[in-house]
Amino acid sequence: MCFKEEITKRAKEITEKIVLYLPKEEGYQRTIFSAMNYSIVVGGKRIRPMLMKAVYDMFGGTSDSIYPFMAAIEMIHTYSLVHDDLPAMDNDEYRRGNKTTHAKYGEAMGILAGDALLNYAYEVAIGAFDVDSDNKDSVIRALKVLTQKAGVYGMVGGQVVDVESEKSPESVITREKLDFIYRLKTGALIEASMVIGAVLANASEEDITMVEQIASKIGLAFQIQDDILDVVSTFEELGKPIGSDEKNNKETYVTFEGIEKSREDLKKLTDEAIDMLHSFGKDDKFLEQLFVYLVYRNK
Amino acid sequence: MCFKEEITKRAKEITEKIVLYLPKEEGYQRTIFSAMNYSIVVGGKRIRPMLMKAVYDMFGGTSDSIYPFMAAIEMIHTYSLVHDDLPAMDNDEYRRGNKTTHAKYGEAMGILAGDALLNYAYEVAIGAFDVDSDNKDSVIRALKVLTQKAGVYGMVGGQVVDVESEKSPESVITREKLDFIYRLKTGALIEASMVIGAVLANASEEDITMVEQIASKIGLAFQIQDDILDVVSTFEELGKPIGSDEKNNKETYVTFEGIEKSREDLKKLTDEAIDMLHSFGKDDKFLEQLFVYLVYRNK
Repeated sequence: MCFKEEITKRAKEITEKIVLYLPKEEGYQRTIFSAMNYSIVVGGKRIRPMLMKAVYDMFGGTSDSIYPFMAAIEMIHTYSLVHDDLPAMDNDEYRRGNKTTHAKYGEAMGILAGDALLNYAYEVAIGAFDVDSDNKDSVIRALKVLTQKAGVYGMVGGQVVDVESEKSPESVITREKLDFIYRLKTGALIEASMVIGAVLANASEEDITMVEQIASKIGLAFQIQDDILDVVSTFEELGKPIGSDEKNNKETYVTFEGIEKSREDLKKLTDEAIDMLHSFGKDDKFLEQLFVYLVYRNK
Repeated sequence: MCFKEEITKRAKEITEKIVLYLPKEEGYQRTIFSAMNYSIVVGGKRIRPMLMKAVYDMFGGTSDSIYPFMAAIEMIHTYSLVHDDLPAMDNDEYRRGNKTTHAKYGEAMGILAGDALLNYAYEVAIGAFDVDSDNKDSVIRALKVLTQKAGVYGMVGGQVVDVESEKSPESVITREKLDFIYRLKTGALIEASMVIGAVLANASEEDITMVEQIASKIGLAFQIQDDILDVVSTFEELGKPIGSDEKNNKETYVTFEGIEKSREDLKKLTDEAIDMLHSFGKDDKFLEQLFVYLVYRNK
């Protein structure tokens, strides 16, 4: 089986697991249940739960407590997209060829479905205490990581600074501010995914710290590739107008560093992350391939 | 000191406690920190944390772990108002004489400030594990109560059905659906407040169950009074157009039951709740007065 098939298979398995945690579409609230489920089911590649599980497996985790956290991180990622797509934010009617949640269910339901998914993520994650009652301290720590990386010192913080920069044309994005946005908006949930995998598998403190550094490098490389693709892709490959960052006068890694230096930096970050990964001396073959797949993707 | 002064004093003390948990307005995210803090600080009577603390005190709770939960429930209540006020929802520019969060900070920040407050509520609540590390099981249970009552099977579920009923004039509200909305939209957070107070004070199972029933009665009585006030208040007392429910063709407890029966039911619910409260045989004087104050308020 080639690697592309392997991740398609894993994404399908993850989706099947996540769906088990979704609310049944019944009762007076069935519209919101339907909107929540729609948002999750049309969603994508399950990168975050896949990273979480791969790290968990690498460190020898065996409990089912990982599944509620895999579902939770995908719900948090999804709610952030649902709210990002709203008219007052990016105002997107379509995402990956499907109607966005507010386009399908109306704006009020888009807001409430996002709220519901965020809250439900924690409702589900807290269920891990019942699954793995001998490992409460790890579950508590995983919850702390999740709330911090998802919140105003993590993903939401990055979104805020990004939105503010876009909406105020006079505000100059410095290189430092761009790094901040990338680290929080994209990086924080990737860090949460991988760190939670390590925490729940009871990895050592040193290993958890190193996992966070690896995740940080991969998160940044992932975002640099996004910027590179915006410049070099064909419309077919990317599924959105090429050069849209440039057209929007948006500062990106590429506008700061140029395309060649961006490619070099991406390769350097990825090589460093993979070297650090190897230093664990574990079976890291899948994770290494997943990193390479993510940062060198062509769309 | 009269009771009105007592609750004003307690509300002030609670606000001072909550403010300690709020993020500092610094760094790139300072706009969102400012919006979060604004939403909380202009807010009101701190009824939910006040109920939580009163129940906690009544059952002899002594740990500081109650404070993060008091802050969390007020943050969750506040985020729900911030999102309720958005243009796609109730579209309110003012709340209690102050600009609503989106009116002051823009719609995108209104959405993100709500998201940030909801997430931060859990970030803060999880901090209770560090404060009361000998009582982890109670903190876990309190977290479960909070997530469930705040989410799609609680407050958000009630909001959804309420919004849907308002936005679809053809949808008929039955009495059963109205009860559902009241129980979830208003009742759920009042139940959460009181139940968490009992759980963190390590009350017995029987007592926790009874606290939930008391809270449910008070929550419904509180909502019935809202409907009565809409009909009978003067504009000055209520601070919003009187009879606005009727004008909006909104079905309420009063339109179903009439004003006299509504008053009777309110009194019956409150008397029952107070009888149940007395059955604990604890010092319940403050809680009893608070119930009476809440359900017989004149604005």
